[in-house]
Order: sequence, then structure tokens, then C-alpha cells
Amino acid sequence: MGLVVQKYGGSSVADAAGIKRVAKRIVDARKRGHQVVVVVSAMGDSTDELIDLASEVSPVASGREFDMLLTAGERISMALLAMAIKALGSEAQSFTGSQAGLITDSVHNKARIIDVTPGRIQSSVDEGNIAIVAGFQGVSQDSKDITTLGRGGSDTTAVALAAALDAEVCEIYTDVDGVFTADPRVVQSARKIDWISFEDMLELASSGSKVLLHRCVEYARRYNIPIHVRSSFSGLEGTWVSNEDPRRARGSAGEKSQQGEQSMEQALISGVAHDTSEAKVTVVGVPDKPGEAAAIFRVIADSQVNIDMVVQNVSAASTGLTDISFTLPKSEGKKAISALERAQGTIGYESLRYDDQIAKISLVGAGMKTNPGVTATFFDALSNAGVNIELISTSEIRISVVTREELVDEAVRAVHSAFGLDSASDEAVVYGGTGR
Amino acid sequence: MGLVVQKYGGSSVADAAGIKRVAKRIVDARKRGHQVVVVVSAMGDSTDELIDLASEVSPVASGREFDMLLTAGERISMALLAMAIKALGSEAQSFTGSQAGLITDSVHNKARIIDVTPGRIQSSVDEGNIAIVAGFQGVSQDSKDITTLGRGGSDTTAVALAAALDAEVCEIYTDVDGVFTADPRVVQSARKIDWISFEDMLELASSGSKVLLHRCVEYARRYNIPIHVRSSFSGLEGTWVSNEDPRRARGSAGEKSQQGEQSMEQALISGVAHDTSEAKVTVVGVPDKPGEAAAIFRVIADSQVNIDMVVQNVSAASTGLTDISFTLPKSEGKKAISALERAQGTIGYESLRYDDQIAKISLVGAGMKTNPGVTATFFDALSNAGVNIELISTSEIRISVVTREELVDEAVRAVHSAFGLDSASDEAVVYGGTGR
Repeated sequence: MGLVVQKYGGSSVADAAGIKRVAKRIVDARKRGHQVVVVVSAMGDSTDELIDLASEVSPVASGREFDMLLTAGERISMALLAMAIKALGSEAQSFTGSQAGLITDSVHNKARIIDVTPGRIQSSVDEGNIAIVAGFQGVSQDSKDITTLGRGGSDTTAVALAAALDAEVCEIYTDVDGVFTADPRVVQSARKIDWISFEDMLELASSGSKVLLHRCVEYARRYNIPIHVRSSFSGLEGTWVSNEDPRRARGSAGEKSQQGEQSMEQALISGVAHDTSEAKVTVVGVPDKPGEAAAIFRVIADSQVNIDMVVQNVSAASTGLTDISFTLPKSEGKKAISALERAQGTIGYESLRYDDQIAKISLVGAGMKTNPGVTATFFDALSNAGVNIELISTSEIRISVVTREELVDEAVRAVHSAFGLDSASDEAVVYGGTGR
Repeated sequence: MGLVVQKYGGSSVADAAGIKRVAKRIVDARKRGHQVVVVVSAMGDSTDELIDLASEVSPVASGREFDMLLTAGERISMALLAMAIKALGSEAQSFTGSQAGLITDSVHNKARIIDVTPGRIQSSVDEGNIAIVAGFQGVSQDSKDITTLGRGGSDTTAVALAAALDAEVCEIYTDVDGVFTADPRVVQSARKIDWISFEDMLELASSGSKVLLHRCVEYARRYNIPIHVRSSFSGLEGTWVSNEDPRRARGSAGEKSQQGEQSMEQALISGVAHDTSEAKVTVVGVPDKPGEAAAIFRVIADSQVNIDMVVQNVSAASTGLTDISFTLPKSEGKKAISALERAQGTIGYESLRYDDQIAKISLVGAGMKTNPGVTATFFDALSNAGVNIELISTSEIRISVVTREELVDEAVRAVHSAFGLDSASDEAVVYGGTGR
């Protein structure tokens, strides 16, 4: 049996009891014959407590020192986890991101991994140890300073180590049972997805599903590392994210063939995601000539705002003017509006409209590109539920619409049902937040 | 002006307010033109909290992982301190023990410093930064594992860095005003010592004075680094510990000459220390022949017990038997007694006596070796106070006696007074505990 990388989020190691429970699970995997490398986040809310302390001593948390501070959280959880494993009779060693060879660029607070040199980790597991690695952190190649990886950093650490160590699988343990066909807090009949492709998972992640972040899935796809997202609180199988459904690859035993059929169904539509964290900006009365859109988005980019959907309506022939709409995180709304206002003279638009009462609903599935009825069914479902569509944007495997925020739950349920994603049983599903 | 190393203990940085106060003091030193390197301990009780967490997940805290855990405490305090300094407009960078070049052996939880390679620290201060270094920690030369230095580790880090950086002085900031002629909690009239030699300070430290630990003073003496122990809560001068009284070296200005006379007085006796943490073991009826004492202390050493005083009485000629007494930390008493009991057959003593109701009182001062009256005055003072002496042990610059624990306060006051150490004024002195 090969090497597995397991990642445990902050909610899984929130206290001593959680650490002991996780330790037991890790030791079990080791006893089944795997080499085990574990990536761990900081305990529960401990990172927030450090951030609070920082804000007490300094109005602006500096990049380098803020990273030095935050990485203390993983240091505590990883050392405690190693001690808990040793208390169960197995050998364990903990390593900082720097010791584990997580080499990053020098952008503090959101560094990118540029290389992984896991020599010490490989030696440690070869000697029979379980290696525990601090998530979320690395060391910069140039300055040798401690860096943190920003949002989703621990998941990305796990996938990066799995790639560098040629692991069989990267198991992401969290406080939910896996990836669902919709947010179970909104759609009670949402089903856990057994398998989903990297591509569909990427679209779900960028459409509001919070279980895995886009960055981590992208890394796994590039190095073809299967991810198994599952709960650290139950023994259940979770959701596999990989190139090919492993149940099909495994063969055709009775039970598996049945699961195979189920996954044939899933191949059409993976799930419905929604996102209420965005706002919509409409630039009204833009001259419909080359370079206008570029000028607008150059202004936005220069103000360091990331945008999501972009939609341009056809221009009214009579005026030669068009409207350009885009969505962006609500938190960046003010910045974008100010930047556009300052540039009104150069761009030459008529006015700006800002709307933060919107929701985005996305349908994701590789099957839709060969199935022309999907778009019609999607819009029919929304229409029957009385939901008006304000913007539409599509990729090959995703359709997203923007609608009113107060209609989002109803809209998601209607779409989920229209595509036959509702589970037959009334089985309750457990759903919570997600760690970093 | 040259480089100064400042060390702040946990009580000085116990909370955000403390960190900001310390930051201000550091920035002031920088503004006076010094290059400043700061060594900092973990905040207040945070180390104890980590130890509690460890005991919740593991019955035995393993060396390597326990060190990894504990070093998180300094990581938090040093990053916060750097941020607080930057908030005051000065530049600061924090460094772990490993980054600062504190190279140790591989004995986890009580590693010894074997080399200091402060290249990064030197570069940082040369670029105009205040460098903040985590106390108490290093990295092992062989395994590159994180180590901690054990008791007094942060003070020793500061002195070691001061030596490697050729600092003018190592300032140890604590919650007391300096080293006193006796513990001010016992002797209200105890005086702060302005200057004390390394040798006298070493004797005081090993006789129960807790302001500086023996290890740190020994390191400073070896590399001739002046230590200035002072309060982080006041602006007062504290106690200088060095080879030569700096006030004499500086010349003969009016005020200084007066202080010079005062220090002439101090040259006789530096202070009175006491220690109630020890117990006394007496091995009764040991055959008075070569090799017996060696056999006893070999047994003790093999059980990893450190002993302090050793006294052998003359043997009674009639029996050819003698008694050997020694003192040791109370916490090691059981271990020593079991080891001796197991060896009774080989050693051939009659019986063991164990007494943990003792106190050790020590008089320290380089002047005593040329002043034959000191011993007599010491014993007279004890006798007049009704204190019986059970053991006596002397060095060239120290006399220690063991007496009943319940008499210790009275004994210390009597001796302090007999040697004219009482302060003339009724000035209150502040005294508290000490950090690690």
C-alpha cells in the first residue's frame, strides 16, 4: 500500500478531544499499512484569537510579522497531534512548512507555492514515522522568511505534498460528509456526490461551493492527485474528486456496477451552487466601440479588484451605446465604484449602477455540453418558481444566472429538483461551515 | 554607540498593553542611537497553557514534539512585539531561534547552546531594523530539529547573542528592580545592589537567588558580557553584573566617587541568599575507608540526581564508621533514596535519614576570603537569633549553612543586619516572581 496524505481542518482539531479522535484515525490508517503524512490547520478559533491580539498592538498587521504570528497556530496543533499519536503507541514527528520543504514566493499573507522539496518528510515516513506537517505555511525562496498561503492554504499544502510525495490520494477531512449536489442548508434533499471530476469541482468551487477551494482543486488537477473529501467525525466514504470515477476503473462487481449507473446519471449534472457574496456593477451608456471594455476593466484591474462574471448586452443601434455589467465581491464594491468614478472622463460612460442584493445560481456538469435541453430546463425551472433572471453567463460545463438575493433559496431548490438531483430518501444530511 | 541586547521576560509582555510598553522602551533605545537586538519570552502564562494542553493529549510529553509545541509561545510574542514596534514607526523583524543561528545539541527540553551564527541578525540590524529574537529556543546541529533550552533559556539566549554580536551590554528586563542583598519579601530593608562581580553573582544564583540563573551568568562571565538586570516597569538603573565595577572604571566625578565608596563596602559581602527547595539525606554508619564516598555518589549520579552540598563528619575512632550528608532538590528525594536503598548491600551503610524541612542560608562576597572575622560574625548572628546550624559548607567567597526551614526568615534577617547590609532609609522595594 502506498502513501496517503490526510488533511484535517481547524474544526476537526478544535480541542484536546478532537485531537485525540483525529490521532486515532491517523493511527488506524497507519495500521492498515499506509505510509501517512498529515497536514493540520490551527485549532478551532485560535487563528482568530491571534488576529485579535495583532489588532490590539498594531493598527496595520504587517505582512512578514503577521505571517510569523499566524504560523504559531499550526505549530501548536501539529505538535499536539504528534504527541497524541505517540500516546497511542505509534511514532510521529511534526514539521513546519519550512522543514517540510514548502517553498513559496515572497508575497506575505497570500504566498504561492513554487516548489516542494519533501526530503525530510520522505525520510521521516521511510523510518516508520507518521509525519505531521503544518498547513497554510511555507518559507520564501528569496528571503527565507516564513510565509502563509492565504485562504485554502492548508488544503493546498496537502495537495502539494501529495503531488511531491507521489501519494495515492489526498484525503481532506472536514466537518461535512463531502461535496453535495447543493448546499444542504438550503436544499434538504441534496445528495452527497460520490465522485466528481476535477473540471466540475472547479466550476462548483468558483460558483459558491465552499467545501473545497478552487486553488486546491486546480493544483490537484494539474498533478492528477485524487482528492477524497470526507468527514473527520464519521467513518463514511465522502466525495472523490479525480480524473476518472474510481468505481468504474475498479471493475464490475455487483454493488459497484450499481454505483456505476448512479454515477452515469451524475455525469449529466454534478450540482447546483449558489453565491450571495457578490454585488453587481452596471456601467450604463458605454460607447459601443473597440477598446471601451478594455478601458473599463483596466481601471478595475489597476484598483486590485477581482471580478467574476462579465456580461455585455448588444447595443441599441439608434444610440450606439451599450451597457456592461460585471459581478465582484461585495467587499470590493466601494473600491471598484470609486475607481470607475475617477475614470468617467476618460472612459466616457453615462452612469454607474451598484446592486448588492443579488445572488448567483450556477448549474454545473460536464454532461450539459452534449445535451441541448439543459439550458431550457434550467430557465423553465426558474421561471416556474417565479424567479426573474438578470444576467446570464455560461461556460462549457456551467450555466450561471444572477437573480434577486431574496429568491435564492427557492431558485436553488427548483433547479435542484428539475434536474432530478433530489435524494429519494428522507435521510438527514449534516452540514456545517468549513475550515481554512 | 554600539549594539545592545535587551531581554524581556514573560511578565513584561503578558498582554497587549505590556507589549506596547516594551515596544516603546525598545524604540527609545534605538532612537538614542543604539543598534538593538531584543530577546523575548512567551507571553505571561501562555507556556503553562500549552503544557496543560499537552497533558490533555498525552500522558508523557515527548521531547521533540514538546519543544515544537512550546516554541510557539515565543513565536507569538516576538511577532506581536515586532508589529507593535512598527506601529511606533520603527522597523523591526522577528526571528526564530533557528533563524537567529542558535545552534544547540540534540537534548530536547534542555538543550545546550554549542554555537551562535547570527548572520541574519547582524544583517537585519545593519539594515536599520530592530531584530526581535525568540528566547529559549534553538535548532539542533545534527538533526535540524527545534530544541528548547530549559530553565533560564531566554536569559541565556540573550547573553549568547550579546557575545556573538559583540554587544556593549546585555540588558535583562524583568519585574524586579535588580539583584538585592537579600530577598526583599523576607528582608524589608534589603538594598538593591548597584554592581556585583560575576563570581559573587554565580554564588548567589546557586544559593537560591532567582533573579538570574547560574547558567546565564556563567555564559556572560566566560565571554565577559556585562549584564544589566533591571525592571521593565520603571526607568531605574538596576544591577550591573560584570568583571569590574563600571562606575570605578568611568572615573571620579562627584556622584560617582560617592557610589564608588558604597561599592567598596559592597566588596566585602554582596548579599544573603536562602533556599528552601532542598532536602537533606544522611547516610549513617558508612565504613570510613577509601572509596566509600565515591560508591555512594556514583549510585546517586547513576540515578540522574543532581546534588548540592556534601558534608562528611569525622568518624568516631571507636567504631570506624562515619556519616555522610548531602542536600538535593526535594523533587529528587524519592529517586535518590530508592537508589541508595537498592545499593545498601554493596555500599554497606547502616541506615538512611531523609529530611525535607530544611533551609540553606548562604553569605556571599569576594571580600570574605581576606577577612577572617566573617565566619565568626555569621555564626554569632545565627546563634543570637536562636538558629541552630546542622551543616556547614564553604567556598572561597561563600559560607552556607543548613538549618530548620521554619527559622529561615529570622536567620536571613539576622545575618543581613549583622553585616550592615540593611538600607538606611525605609524605602519600599518591589519584588515579584521571575520569568523563565
